Amino acid sequence: MNFASDNTGPVHPKVLAALSKANEGYALPYGADDLTAEVTQNIRDTFEAPDAAVYLVSLGTAANSLILATLSDPWSAIFCQRIAHIQEDECNAPEFYSGGAKLILVDGQDAKIDPKNLTAAIEAEEIRGVHGPQRGPISITQATEKGTVYSLDEIRAISAVAKSYNLPVHMDGARFSNAVSHLGCSAADMTWKAGIDAVTFGGTKNGLMAVEAVIFFDPKHAWEFELRRKRGAHLFSKHRFLAAQMQAYLEGDLWLEMAAMANTATARLARGLKQIEGVTLDFEPDANIIFPRWSRAKHQALHAAGAKYYVWQGDHTQGDPQEVLPARLVTDWSSTDESIDRFLDCLSNG
Amino acid sequence: MNFASDNTGPVHPKVLAALSKANEGYALPYGADDLTAEVTQNIRDTFEAPDAAVYLVSLGTAANSLILATLSDPWSAIFCQRIAHIQEDECNAPEFYSGGAKLILVDGQDAKIDPKNLTAAIEAEEIRGVHGPQRGPISITQATEKGTVYSLDEIRAISAVAKSYNLPVHMDGARFSNAVSHLGCSAADMTWKAGIDAVTFGGTKNGLMAVEAVIFFDPKHAWEFELRRKRGAHLFSKHRFLAAQMQAYLEGDLWLEMAAMANTATARLARGLKQIEGVTLDFEPDANIIFPRWSRAKHQALHAAGAKYYVWQGDHTQGDPQEVLPARLVTDWSSTDESIDRFLDCLSNG
Amino acid sequence: MNFASDNTGPVHPKVLAALSKANEGYALPYGADDLTAEVTQNIRDTFEAPDAAVYLVSLGTAANSLILATLSDPWSAIFCQRIAHIQEDECNAPEFYSGGAKLILVDGQDAKIDPKNLTAAIEAEEIRGVHGPQRGPISITQATEKGTVYSLDEIRAISAVAKSYNLPVHMDGARFSNAVSHLGCSAADMTWKAGIDAVTFGGTKNGLMAVEAVIFFDPKHAWEFELRRKRGAHLFSKHRFLAAQMQAYLEGDLWLEMAAMANTATARLARGLKQIEGVTLDFEPDANIIFPRWSRAKHQALHAAGAKYYVWQGDHTQGDPQEVLPARLVTDWSSTDESIDRFLDCLSNG
Amino acid sequence: MNFASDNTGPVHPKVLAALSKANEGYALPYGADDLTAEVTQNIRDTFEAPDAAVYLVSLGTAANSLILATLSDPWSAIFCQRIAHIQEDECNAPEFYSGGAKLILVDGQDAKIDPKNLTAAIEAEEIRGVHGPQRGPISITQATEKGTVYSLDEIRAISAVAKSYNLPVHMDGARFSNAVSHLGCSAADMTWKAGIDAVTFGGTKNGLMAVEAVIFFDPKHAWEFELRRKRGAHLFSKHRFLAAQMQAYLEGDLWLEMAAMANTATARLARGLKQIEGVTLDFEPDANIIFPRWSRAKHQALHAAGAKYYVWQGDHTQGDPQEVLPARLVTDWSSTDESIDRFLDCLSNG
Repeated sequence: MNFASDNTGPVHPKVLAALSKANEGYALPYGADDLTAEVTQNIRDTFEAPDAAVYLVSLGTAANSLILATLSDPWSAIFCQRIAHIQEDECNAPEFYSGGAKLILVDGQDAKIDPKNLTAAIEAEEIRGVHGPQRGPISITQATEKGTVYSLDEIRAISAVAKSYNLPVHMDGARFSNAVSHLGCSAADMTWKAGIDAVTFGGTKNGLMAVEAVIFFDPKHAWEFELRRKRGAHLFSKHRFLAAQMQAYLEGDLWLEMAAMANTATARLARGLKQIEGVTLDFEPDANIIFPRWSRAKHQALHAAGAKYYVWQGDHTQGDPQEVLPARLVTDWSSTDESIDRFLDCLSNG
Repeated sequence: MNFASDNTGPVHPKVLAALSKANEGYALPYGADDLTAEVTQNIRDTFEAPDAAVYLVSLGTAANSLILATLSDPWSAIFCQRIAHIQEDECNAPEFYSGGAKLILVDGQDAKIDPKNLTAAIEAEEIRGVHGPQRGPISITQATEKGTVYSLDEIRAISAVAKSYNLPVHMDGARFSNAVSHLGCSAADMTWKAGIDAVTFGGTKNGLMAVEAVIFFDPKHAWEFELRRKRGAHLFSKHRFLAAQMQAYLEGDLWLEMAAMANTATARLARGLKQIEGVTLDFEPDANIIFPRWSRAKHQALHAAGAKYYVWQGDHTQGDPQEVLPARLVTDWSSTDESIDRFLDCLSNG
Repeated sequence: MNFASDNTGPVHPKVLAALSKANEGYALPYGADDLTAEVTQNIRDTFEAPDAAVYLVSLGTAANSLILATLSDPWSAIFCQRIAHIQEDECNAPEFYSGGAKLILVDGQDAKIDPKNLTAAIEAEEIRGVHGPQRGPISITQATEKGTVYSLDEIRAISAVAKSYNLPVHMDGARFSNAVSHLGCSAADMTWKAGIDAVTFGGTKNGLMAVEAVIFFDPKHAWEFELRRKRGAHLFSKHRFLAAQMQAYLEGDLWLEMAAMANTATARLARGLKQIEGVTLDFEPDANIIFPRWSRAKHQALHAAGAKYYVWQGDHTQGDPQEVLPARLVTDWSSTDESIDRFLDCLSNG
Repeated sequence: MNFASDNTGPVHPKVLAALSKANEGYALPYGADDLTAEVTQNIRDTFEAPDAAVYLVSLGTAANSLILATLSDPWSAIFCQRIAHIQEDECNAPEFYSGGAKLILVDGQDAKIDPKNLTAAIEAEEIRGVHGPQRGPISITQATEKGTVYSLDEIRAISAVAKSYNLPVHMDGARFSNAVSHLGCSAADMTWKAGIDAVTFGGTKNGLMAVEAVIFFDPKHAWEFELRRKRGAHLFSKHRFLAAQMQAYLEGDLWLEMAAMANTATARLARGLKQIEGVTLDFEPDANIIFPRWSRAKHQALHAAGAKYYVWQGDHTQGDPQEVLPARLVTDWSSTDESIDRFLDCLSNG
């Protein structure tokens, strides 16, 4: 019953197997090895983007920050949702990597940017000449931090706003796979075909050890990104081990397979939760995260039973037993029906 | 009829006289001259702060950014009002000088920070360990960008919140003098006695050429500030000319005299405006700025008559003549009753 | 015959086994897992430093830059050898992470800092008040970039200079193990017992996939380092996989075993090279790197025979066949006697 | 007898007069005033550069750092003379403004960059792909920090090297006027006609209060510079007072007149010094600085007589009276024959 995060479970056995296989013999360092070349091409194929500039780094924060730094200037405004990971959970990494750009927070339902609010936010910048920050990239998270997923139309609406101001759009795809799985579209559909300029194609939260791909659909950013990656200390010498993980990820669409397993697990959770009296959901889950609420008493019972998850607000250990507190539950490829059902059972009877 | 800003008028003749006087003979550079020592002591006396670390720089943005950088870390959150000058009008200078700190915007009436909102904003940070930014300084603007003035109680309420989290408070006093003049209190009352830790004591918007004093009431920040000032290229070699301006400013309380003149001029404007039909004020003016509204037709008539001021939103040159558009009017020591009355007359009959 | 670098060979099988083992079940992220706690303690034990603050990152450049940023201010001078990796091969990462500190280059024989030159370099700073950079940390590389190793006395001599100015000393130990193996001392002997304040304890160049430990012997730096690591995007979510590698590394002193194998291989190379007419060595190799010289004709013959290594200067593919060009050869735990002997044979007869 | 620096003397009376005159009436802020437009054009005329992007800032360090940041990337190498002001006396301001660029020090006689050494330094960078810094701008100081002046041929030789690598050249002209006066050439001859891309045209050390012009001969840098200037807090609101100083400076070639006075004063000093036994000069003075040497006893006598200047190395107050210590003497437009002769007399007879 571990629903703490999609970074607490094991990596897929195929990933370990790929690492072992990649360990044979000698390989050129810093991404000059054959496996990296092959995987780069695989990613381009997966995204139907033959000219894309493609890179591997090990952390999502690195991918996001390096992309945003490449797409912005130190005097830029970067537009993102109020609760975006880049705003809340990266300890000012985007500001650090960009040399001091300013994040402008945009509201919207379901943890998504509302295009009207985005327009208003953009309109509010660059109206004071050199005195204010200059308009910069828009960053959206797909799937969002709340487990919702932008529809293709919703992405296109945001891109349309961005394009009308000639601004680039970045997609933080830490849970990219979960979103594609939910939408049933292609990677291309959800990115460049919908107006996305650069994407963090996440692997770590979906069964890999620590790999995220960075994709710029316009390769003009390539060299600057490479220098930023090196300067940020994110260029791996034994690069084949990043490539091996990504190779396993793409091979036979393991990425989609794992995402489907994670999404299905959350859907099972959601179905069960809705049938339990006193439980409500903050958002309708599209992907592999869910934010339900129940009483402190039930939180205590679940923890006593060994369930692992975050109580998202408040202290479940003390206070009124009937007070309702929100939880965050996250599933991944390794979540089992058995653990879900046990959790639901515990909640029903707790 | 020039009400464009308090940086468009002439400097006070006493300032020019002081510059001439300071120009006699040789003086040690970089603030080691006698005049700087004397003025530093004058500022300490004015603020009743014998131990304060006191510096002169030439721009308010420099003073604010250098102070905030000194009081924060690159991973800090800096709390300020949503429309603070440091947020809107400094082109990411605070982010630059701090090495990437994040400004957290706090709402409140009358362009002031509401202490309850401040508490909520502080509570929302430092709850995610290393993942989010760490709580840093609070910055308030006195008088505010909208021409309102925090009462001493209001300042104390903000400081009390800050102190309860052990966070320092900075006052952006670009219009410090106007606020003191309005409150009829002392410089000490409005700063360290009310819990302020560091202040930008502005001169440029109040009749000086280009001088702002930086005051840290706790001198432990002195050496770091001096290094930051030098590294930011804000340490003047011919420092006596900054000191001379500030000397003239303090001599015989010229700073208060000029502020009173500016405030009185805005008060006269406000009184007149309230008597004109169809004119409304966005804020009750405490200092030397006022945000009134009237029709596009009247804007056009005023501009045709040679009035200089900013139409704060929208284009006054074309559109429905009856549409109401906001203006910003600013006065300074040089504003004359005659120009105000002519402006009001033009507005009444335009 | 691959002597291109110690980052081109395979990782040790025990490392892969450790990764597989660590993959069982669920683990708290971001270093809160049990394995990380255990490994942290192992490192403290290995260094006989029970209070040390210990962290794992994946790249040496990250470890070096984050340590130096923690030990310095943006206005600091960082003293290092003229050919230090942090100066030549990190694309300004130390400047980036430190917020703009300045590297001051110090000369010395055998790629080492000469204590007299270090004294002179330190004396040349902080003599201009705020105008020049302020004295900051000293960084030495052990083993050096040229394959030489500081004796314990040499380290102590540098630390003594540093201590006399109250400056901290950092050791870039990308090849720490090779140096310990050469000196036959303990990890403690070569670090805190010799006056080192912080060390990058490298694993990547010595048989790991991508792990370096960061060790501060004074734990006062802990929290700042943790914030810097997160902000730099170097805090791994699935941290157990960094820990697993380091666990395998320390278990049964695998790190020393692999280092001894690498050093022995270079020693075998050196012995052979000295017996070949026309071959000279730039430095007497103490560790696992060697810089020999021979003719372009021989370079061509070796490359034709499939040998992999860097011609360190000049173009071996064209020019006078008798011109002598330097090479860099690096060995690691996987280097075989057979490959070395074949290389030497090829060189003798090429 | 004040030869401490060219920032210790008074500003020229015409400068004060210009400030008074500029103080009449209202003027648009931030450089949008008529006087700034006029002065901008005057500078373009003076430099025979009708398309140049021209800006005013108040400090030389600001001008240098902002120009170099505009001409470089954070991962650049900036090439300068070993004793350049940007290296020694700006507390890492170039590193700060550039976001962490690295200064590469180049040697040469007479405080000048030797073109051969420059070529070697450039050749040593950008040979390690992304691993090392990328080649960036060259910065030369004219007149140099040691009072020598590059000939036009020497400047051209450096520019030719730079151009062959497609790198821009910056001239730190804190003492630009002194150099032009010495060479008897035009401002254009010494800059764009000799291959200079951007120049700090200093005023502060030559009789102004605090103004330096920034000139980019290629206006493509304009907007980026304007944003950097604002973000660095170097955009003056009451900009007319910078413009007024520069106007007075150019009017009737006051800048050349003052420079000639300063140079003539140093020449008089030099002539006198050469006739005094036991006095030697480190450099043949071309401009307004001179580095002579004499005994501690004479230093003591001069100081006792009230002479003000820097003993450049060592402590003149104690030690062997016969030990020879270097001095630095600087003259400006206000230096009088009488003070020079008195100084020489004191030295001869001291």
